[in-house]
Amino acid sequence: MEETIAEKMAKDMREVSVAEFFEKNRHLLGYENPTKSLITVVKEAVENSLDATNEANILPEIYVSMKQVGMDRFKVIVEDNGPGVVEAKVPYAFGKFLYGSKFHRLRQSRGVQGLGIHGAILYSQLTTGKPIKITSSVGKDISIFELMIDVARNEPHVISVKKEKNPNKWHGVKIEMEIEGRYTEKSPSVLEYLKQTAIANPYANIIFDGPNGKIEFKRAIEQIPAQPKEIKPHPYGVELGILRRMLKDTKSKNMLSFLTTEFCRVGRNSAEQIYKLAKIELKKKPQEITPEESERLHKAMQMVKLMAPPTNCLSPLTEKLIEEGLKKEIEAEYVVAVTRPPTVYRGYPFQVECGLAYGGKIPENETAKILRFANKVPLLYHQGDCAITEAVAEVDWRRYGLQQSSGSLPVGPLAILVHFASVWVPFTSEGKQAIANYPEIVKEIKLALQDAGRELASYIRQKRKARERLLRKQIFERYIPEVARAVSKLTNKDYKTILKKLEDMIKKKVDLIVEEEKEAQEEKTEEKVKKVKQITLKEVGKVEGSEKKA
Amino acid sequence: MEETIAEKMAKDMREVSVAEFFEKNRHLLGYENPTKSLITVVKEAVENSLDATNEANILPEIYVSMKQVGMDRFKVIVEDNGPGVVEAKVPYAFGKFLYGSKFHRLRQSRGVQGLGIHGAILYSQLTTGKPIKITSSVGKDISIFELMIDVARNEPHVISVKKEKNPNKWHGVKIEMEIEGRYTEKSPSVLEYLKQTAIANPYANIIFDGPNGKIEFKRAIEQIPAQPKEIKPHPYGVELGILRRMLKDTKSKNMLSFLTTEFCRVGRNSAEQIYKLAKIELKKKPQEITPEESERLHKAMQMVKLMAPPTNCLSPLTEKLIEEGLKKEIEAEYVVAVTRPPTVYRGYPFQVECGLAYGGKIPENETAKILRFANKVPLLYHQGDCAITEAVAEVDWRRYGLQQSSGSLPVGPLAILVHFASVWVPFTSEGKQAIANYPEIVKEIKLALQDAGRELASYIRQKRKARERLLRKQIFERYIPEVARAVSKLTNKDYKTILKKLEDMIKKKVDLIVEEEKEAQEEKTEEKVKKVKQITLKEVGKVEGSEKKA
Repeated sequence: MEETIAEKMAKDMREVSVAEFFEKNRHLLGYENPTKSLITVVKEAVENSLDATNEANILPEIYVSMKQVGMDRFKVIVEDNGPGVVEAKVPYAFGKFLYGSKFHRLRQSRGVQGLGIHGAILYSQLTTGKPIKITSSVGKDISIFELMIDVARNEPHVISVKKEKNPNKWHGVKIEMEIEGRYTEKSPSVLEYLKQTAIANPYANIIFDGPNGKIEFKRAIEQIPAQPKEIKPHPYGVELGILRRMLKDTKSKNMLSFLTTEFCRVGRNSAEQIYKLAKIELKKKPQEITPEESERLHKAMQMVKLMAPPTNCLSPLTEKLIEEGLKKEIEAEYVVAVTRPPTVYRGYPFQVECGLAYGGKIPENETAKILRFANKVPLLYHQGDCAITEAVAEVDWRRYGLQQSSGSLPVGPLAILVHFASVWVPFTSEGKQAIANYPEIVKEIKLALQDAGRELASYIRQKRKARERLLRKQIFERYIPEVARAVSKLTNKDYKTILKKLEDMIKKKVDLIVEEEKEAQEEKTEEKVKKVKQITLKEVGKVEGSEKKA
Repeated sequence: MEETIAEKMAKDMREVSVAEFFEKNRHLLGYENPTKSLITVVKEAVENSLDATNEANILPEIYVSMKQVGMDRFKVIVEDNGPGVVEAKVPYAFGKFLYGSKFHRLRQSRGVQGLGIHGAILYSQLTTGKPIKITSSVGKDISIFELMIDVARNEPHVISVKKEKNPNKWHGVKIEMEIEGRYTEKSPSVLEYLKQTAIANPYANIIFDGPNGKIEFKRAIEQIPAQPKEIKPHPYGVELGILRRMLKDTKSKNMLSFLTTEFCRVGRNSAEQIYKLAKIELKKKPQEITPEESERLHKAMQMVKLMAPPTNCLSPLTEKLIEEGLKKEIEAEYVVAVTRPPTVYRGYPFQVECGLAYGGKIPENETAKILRFANKVPLLYHQGDCAITEAVAEVDWRRYGLQQSSGSLPVGPLAILVHFASVWVPFTSEGKQAIANYPEIVKEIKLALQDAGRELASYIRQKRKARERLLRKQIFERYIPEVARAVSKLTNKDYKTILKKLEDMIKKKVDLIVEEEKEAQEEKTEEKVKKVKQITLKEVGKVEGSEKKA
């Protein structure tokens, strides 16, 4: 009897296409409600445009149009001036899940998974049944596709292709689709997404032609940030399974060249150290390494001291940009930003930056507002589930002069911006709205927040002192006239002169205090700088440990 | 110049295997840190065992062993008495992502995606490089596999197969793997997962042979819950894209039979109504339906009044079980449970149940503890990102006599259990730890909590009244003797008799109050029952609307 059931179950077993999987799980891609879906579609298209223009070193001109065409129905158009997609690849680049050029490469970019824009197309055909229209040119002819996804096979289904002349050598991609959605301008919204995108990408020019009229986010910087470089994995935290695959697939003839060519930051010396620890001869062929040897090698790779990964694979916002961004976004009285040196998780380099905006127009007694970015893309959803939020909650903000009930977010006139840049951002879902809380990541974000927090703390202290000082001064001043009168009576000296002298005395005293505090402040800052340096070194050391555990 | 870049990018484009995708995104499957990974592995294996035994109508005997075999290394064994897997299918059922028997079927089960146990295997080969060992029998011979996943191709890589005689006709599956992990017993933990699993599946017998010794979660009920039935999709909320696929693929010869055979709850009359609204002749071939017609049909399907989906595709915990579970889990003074009638989202039937435990040993001034279940599986992570949490926060608990700052969880001696049962649970990620907040789902959970909340409220009220009554009584009693003495003096009547009379009077009075309150209470309950009924009907109606929007 069990047999028949096992047999029956066996008959039902079959393969599921990735497209079918995401059709049934569209919320994984960010399409669980009409408002979010509209944002997600724009997000995916704009990310692609920013990546493509970056790749081609072009100053991005992005045009987003969104018009209501029916009850809960919108026509969305996103056009860029990127390099375009070669005609032969268009159907796959848009119509096949898990197909793309960025997945296997270790370099910071917004999209990597080959799921983003495909999801938008799937959602459009699910909700309106309409094919998507793609106009693309690499500078020669213009090709226009009508495209759908054959869900059962996860293959593109081309409905029509047209070719057009391209007299003025236009290049780029234009996507047009009709989807079910709902438009709002209260957060989270398309507008907010584009606004924050503009802050994190000030070299881009973005025009939004929305339901309530045209808005242009003007380019603020004329030059494009340096192209992040592609790198090899860093030995720290590379998993045993991956290492074994690498040993099998490498072209290196011997182990020495294996480590030095397949990984970054491994020179001849470190390689020799590693093999000494692992008891493996340098001459051995990678393919001949036994399971036991590969395990020893894996351990050894985590134990040898290596340089942190190179920074040129990452493209941070920079402290300057964060401070400008915060000033632009929030009318605060004080702003501070910190960019941490890069480190690694699972062998992937990453870098954390944060900024704090304090006081000014920020409401006094509300929970701090958190602005989250990953690879320059704003994250608007799933805040509760994000490593950034966890890190913010774990920092003790009372130390820095703010209120906080333990384990929850700080309360006070504070806005917190955190940017996570990595060659591989571990998003909690394919919708890419929150960062998974790998221990090393949460830890690094906390360190960044603490660095900035100390800065903020001394500003708040100073502010308090200044207030007290002013009070003291006022008190003195109130009594000066009386004192002066009394003294002049006793000493028969001229009232005016005495008054003047007393006033000077107080002024000197106050100035002195100010001076002292200034100096104290400067020392503190220097200390801080030192501290950061030490932490950095410590980190790179520690990462090893934590990596090993994680 | 752009061209060359476009060309270069084109060269880099390639397909990514699902296995590669999850290898790089192991956190999506629940493997971002060693503690969680250990829980996830057990969770996936136990879910499979429970599903398999249910399928074969076998009382589950599940054995989980977990022994530390090195620094952060554990040997995990999970064995069940299920129907087993036929030898030919073993490699795929365990070694190929997105392969399984449950994905395409609309019936409540724990696993559906064909990702769970595969993820465990991937994690094991990633972290320890060791193959997984699978022993399976359908009652005949026993086959023993050593298996890995060929990640680049997402194909099983069988390392060895052995056959053994099976004298005592054992049937089931036994999985053995070595993984990196960290064992803890403070929540969330393997122990907690198994404990809550036992509560939600009291007909299962689970033995946990863990690092700190053996624990048995004994079977509490001898009979297995009725096998949930497989159903057709419900017309409400089926997406246009899906509808078009169904029209293309159906075997029905004409539209009338299409609606009545491919969907549930559509009889001849409803079908005719729908086609009348959609202006489509019943005789037309489904394959000949034009895009415009399919759109009209889709609209019409949402507008016609239909019965809620059948309940027999769902297997709720039932109010009785929830109350028992809560009593077992939490030493509360009052427990109430509510099982809502089933409804639909995106055409998928689902049903919400909840239970509230109040007072007793539950801490007074803490945030309410939330126990989340989906298809009888406890959810231990990502609470902040779960539709259940959102619904709990959106309910106004102050009405029911608890503290709550708006938009956050209630505070008080309260534990909240919510069970979401559906033929398709929309998890926020493949790790299956939180439910995506589809509007219809959040709404239904809120209604369940409000039903239970009203019950709780009247209990709390009664309790307060009882306390006041007691006070009043005590005050009376204190003065009775004096009054009696005074009266007896004045009236020269016997003190004792007077005292007796007075006491009787008070007793009567108090009893009367109690009576009145009892009656009031009963009326309230009746009202409530009525109310639930109304809400239900309203709901089924509303769902239509919200579905259309969502």
